[in-house]
Amino acid sequence: MTIKKILIVAGTHGNEINPIWAFNQLKKEQNNFDKDIEYKYIIGNPLAYEKGSRYIDSDLNRSFNSNNQNINNNKNNYEINRANFLVQRYGINGEDPCQIAIDLHTTTSNMGTSIVIYGRRIKDFCLASLLQNKFGLPIYLHEQDKRQTGFLVEAWPCGLVLEIGPVAQNYYDSKIINRFLIIISSLREEINKLKNNLIALPKTLIVHVHQGSIDYPRTKNGDINGLIHPERMNKDWKLTKKGDPLFLDIEGNTLRYLGQDIIWPVFIGEVAYKEKNIAMSFTKKEVICSSNEWVDQFFKS
Amino acid sequence: MTIKKILIVAGTHGNEINPIWAFNQLKKEQNNFDKDIEYKYIIGNPLAYEKGSRYIDSDLNRSFNSNNQNINNNKNNYEINRANFLVQRYGINGEDPCQIAIDLHTTTSNMGTSIVIYGRRIKDFCLASLLQNKFGLPIYLHEQDKRQTGFLVEAWPCGLVLEIGPVAQNYYDSKIINRFLIIISSLREEINKLKNNLIALPKTLIVHVHQGSIDYPRTKNGDINGLIHPERMNKDWKLTKKGDPLFLDIEGNTLRYLGQDIIWPVFIGEVAYKEKNIAMSFTKKEVICSSNEWVDQFFKS
Repeated sequence: MTIKKILIVAGTHGNEINPIWAFNQLKKEQNNFDKDIEYKYIIGNPLAYEKGSRYIDSDLNRSFNSNNQNINNNKNNYEINRANFLVQRYGINGEDPCQIAIDLHTTTSNMGTSIVIYGRRIKDFCLASLLQNKFGLPIYLHEQDKRQTGFLVEAWPCGLVLEIGPVAQNYYDSKIINRFLIIISSLREEINKLKNNLIALPKTLIVHVHQGSIDYPRTKNGDINGLIHPERMNKDWKLTKKGDPLFLDIEGNTLRYLGQDIIWPVFIGEVAYKEKNIAMSFTKKEVICSSNEWVDQFFKS
Repeated sequence: MTIKKILIVAGTHGNEINPIWAFNQLKKEQNNFDKDIEYKYIIGNPLAYEKGSRYIDSDLNRSFNSNNQNINNNKNNYEINRANFLVQRYGINGEDPCQIAIDLHTTTSNMGTSIVIYGRRIKDFCLASLLQNKFGLPIYLHEQDKRQTGFLVEAWPCGLVLEIGPVAQNYYDSKIINRFLIIISSLREEINKLKNNLIALPKTLIVHVHQGSIDYPRTKNGDINGLIHPERMNKDWKLTKKGDPLFLDIEGNTLRYLGQDIIWPVFIGEVAYKEKNIAMSFTKKEVICSSNEWVDQFFKS
């Protein structure tokens, strides 16, 4: 594809405010290094941002599903309308078309800086490998989870989520903002270098492939009945094997991981996922070999 | 006063969930060390807790103001009704009277474990000095601020707030829960020891006296236009003098403290206080000499 415009979205969740600050700062700067690519900075969910809430009616980052008739038929849902507006305006066939979407998020869980991609799209692999090569960032490859669909970047032919944490919702943290500034600036530079054949892609891409999610232990009434175990807390991306502790219930009993496979949990104790009945998600590591075709597809096809 | 019952309240703000977990754990334990004093554990704002929000209509911990006719006349306000219910039920002249109220809160700001008391009530001094003596906890003495009134513990003849942080809203953290368990258990023990003349109060009480609060820098539209400065971030309770940085605006300018007096800021960047236009509060240190009269008043008058 010919990359003319790249959409940078922040505040897709209205209570993740640090990336909005970061991109307001970036907007003030002159883009000196790439005259050919225009960057557009958009607040995903302006009404939720104003109210300091994650969303108004439903999660905007699960609302970009053009195949889901039930969702799209709900005319009164603010986020469905907003998702449709964003695609009509900035989608690949929109009025002001952008070829790539970068969606900026924060986590309350101790994920550090990471990338999320959805499914195995070669263009996304290309983009993600630029950042993994530069910063060594872990990549969460989300696929084959019917419970969770309709992510923003899936509505563009290429895109990724950048997650930075831990930071509380609605809490400005200049360290988190600085990390966004560094990553976004570098991403612009790396795309420019790749375009001008100044860098090559790394030979391999290491991804953490989504396997599924587990809920907290709950009482019969549905109340959470187990904390993230102190030994699991803040251990996102760390290897977990059979017998390792996951939860601590109110009687002080330890609930352990009983699977045979080695896993790497992520989004451990994420506040925003409690309502989705997710205490953490399990991933497995996979190494993907890159190819020159990735760059060709990224810029040409 | 004859202390027969002590009210322990958690979830006065529905999104401060760790103390609720702690007291559910305490409720399961047998109270072996004090047969004379009964502890009652109540969720302050059960509806907000269920929804994961700070409050429904207004801040419950600003709703206990029996002199404020405007507030009390609002029959449809959930928190006003809840405040009235709690006082009618557990107030000193209520159906199930409690002589002391302990209100458990969490902060997103880096306050550590601290005590808040409201005004200079001798019984509160006595209670707070027990915890300062045991753990060296800082005490925030809130007084003479007309912008902020109607705190829960003020509706009881004796009471204090226990604040523990930093922890994100709606985020369970077993380390924070453990701190609540330790402090509440110790408070019960210390009250019991004092009653049986097994300990004496310390000679002095060190308090940080509230001087006022400052807002974030804002644009003409009211949007926040300055971050807590990286050098001020997480520096609650730390000495601040003229010229020290407070905020960093979006152009990168540092805004400094210009007062002549040395101050100790608290609640720096507290998420819940953004809507109250408070970026931080200033305190000054004061040493108060204790007296035997404190214990007499605490148990007898």
